[in-house]
Amino acid sequence: MPREYIHRRRVEFHETDLAGIVHFSNFFRYMEAAESEFLRHLGLSIHEASETGTVGWPRGEVSCRFTAPLRFGDEFEVHLSVARISARTITYQCVFHRLEVDRTTEAASGTSTAIHVEIEASGKQLKTTMIPVRIRERIEAYFEIKTEDSASPASQTG
Amino acid sequence: MPREYIHRRRVEFHETDLAGIVHFSNFFRYMEAAESEFLRHLGLSIHEASETGTVGWPRGEVSCRFTAPLRFGDEFEVHLSVARISARTITYQCVFHRLEVDRTTEAASGTSTAIHVEIEASGKQLKTTMIPVRIRERIEAYFEIKTEDSASPASQTG
Amino acid sequence: MPREYIHRRRVEFHETDLAGIVHFSNFFRYMEAAESEFLRHLGLSIHEASETGTVGWPRGEVSCRFTAPLRFGDEFEVHLSVARISARTITYQCVFHRLEVDRTTEAASGTSTAIHVEIEASGKQLKTTMIPVRIRERIEAYFEIKTEDSASPASQTG
Amino acid sequence: MPREYIHRRRVEFHETDLAGIVHFSNFFRYMEAAESEFLRHLGLSIHEASETGTVGWPRGEVSCRFTAPLRFGDEFEVHLSVARISARTITYQCVFHRLEVDRTTEAASGTSTAIHVEIEASGKQLKTTMIPVRIRERIEAYFEIKTEDSASPASQTG
Repeated sequence: MPREYIHRRRVEFHETDLAGIVHFSNFFRYMEAAESEFLRHLGLSIHEASETGTVGWPRGEVSCRFTAPLRFGDEFEVHLSVARISARTITYQCVFHRLEVDRTTEAASGTSTAIHVEIEASGKQLKTTMIPVRIRERIEAYFEIKTEDSASPASQTG
Repeated sequence: MPREYIHRRRVEFHETDLAGIVHFSNFFRYMEAAESEFLRHLGLSIHEASETGTVGWPRGEVSCRFTAPLRFGDEFEVHLSVARISARTITYQCVFHRLEVDRTTEAASGTSTAIHVEIEASGKQLKTTMIPVRIRERIEAYFEIKTEDSASPASQTG
Repeated sequence: MPREYIHRRRVEFHETDLAGIVHFSNFFRYMEAAESEFLRHLGLSIHEASETGTVGWPRGEVSCRFTAPLRFGDEFEVHLSVARISARTITYQCVFHRLEVDRTTEAASGTSTAIHVEIEASGKQLKTTMIPVRIRERIEAYFEIKTEDSASPASQTG
Repeated sequence: MPREYIHRRRVEFHETDLAGIVHFSNFFRYMEAAESEFLRHLGLSIHEASETGTVGWPRGEVSCRFTAPLRFGDEFEVHLSVARISARTITYQCVFHRLEVDRTTEAASGTSTAIHVEIEASGKQLKTTMIPVRIRERIEAYFEIKTEDSASPASQTG
């Protein structure tokens, strides 16, 4: 089983909608929060100053499939793993587990592809750039991803 | 070319994030708003009282690919069409067009599968149900979807 | 010094805006989350089933004064106390403390008046009702509010 | 009667909560959107590039009193006027009118004090600055505010 990073939280009132369940758009905010916490855990950041401006991870593509609702007050976990790393992108997999008294129920499952970019000072330009080796290595080490997979990032498409 | 429903709006300040662009989760809110306006245009609703409780359209699965950022004040259009109707679900396709002085740029493209459900009065149970014929017909008529496709909804998997 | 309930959290990326700081509307969500956690701590809820429908605490009036920005990744505390309890309302006071390496900075200070209501089953009617004694007593006990203040709730205006 | 700027919109699904009404935090987003549209109407902006960086209008203080709920699909207007202009701040007044078939109901009423700031390029520093005369004059002209009130902005406290 691949290693996972687990982000636990509880549904807040403002995250629900008229149907009495968490609005689906918030699952993407939960996924981002899980990724953010994971990067912080590694001493990295989803958005930080670099030598030449700011480095960030905007989304390239995301998806989510919903299987059971989350409701106000529900506790749940986002289980984050890496589905793929290319030279310039990381695709995370997030599985949502709703915690109940005596079991857990899978509530949703999604993917999120983050693109490594440099944002120049004015904030007007986002430029896709190679994921620095120090970042790549730390993420691969955490998830015990074999280095063969990432031996020649420049030749990958990302 | 399939017929489209066009929902136009402008990026609001609170929809942006630290990177200076619309937070990606908001694209799903825009998609939902486009669908909502489309249903209203047809005299239908994304959430309404029925004889036996409430009828709604929670999401089964959504995805979005981002190709150009939207920024504060940008005007854009969501072009909504129907990719598929089954007995119990509708899959919408939404293409985002950023409006510029002399051209438009595709900003994103997504899909959203809505499931027709009945919500019983307490709000605790969502039950998937067949899309009523009157709703199905109105949507198919708008998009000029051939009736052969929907001749026997009961036999579809949805 | 009045007793406080402390809710600690960290700024998430989606909570920031184009100006690089937490969007001010989110301070009200933080205040609500603090209140929610506080009620949960007491075994109560901001929204729960009752014998006759649902009982909730919509807002009557809120305000917030902002003195220092919160930024992505900042850790902060919401210090919640009760400014006033009347027969049908509770006014909470929330002070935001930004946690820094060697000090804390007050980021904002707000108030929020919650009205005790019954929501009938269809969700269409909200009816203001007296705060039940068991709820009132638990809150007053937590904050060590003297019982003289709440001896005759029926005569208070709230 | 003071002149008003009217911003009309309709409640979107994601803006509602579990209680079946618009989450109160969204009223502040509506107020900001009204202000934004108003400034755009005057050829100004709530956030724009200046010669020396970026100029924005973060909030100093906001408040809102809620008198009738807004629900999914409700059409409403935000009536924006200026309660006060000082050298560095503008306090807007916003009254929410829910539009019904045969009448309008006041849903809420709020105030929002915007502070004129310069944001230096890194986004790390916000500096309060005088409202430029061209901006002040345009706003005062729109609301037919007498120029005596603003004769000596430098002497005002703001």
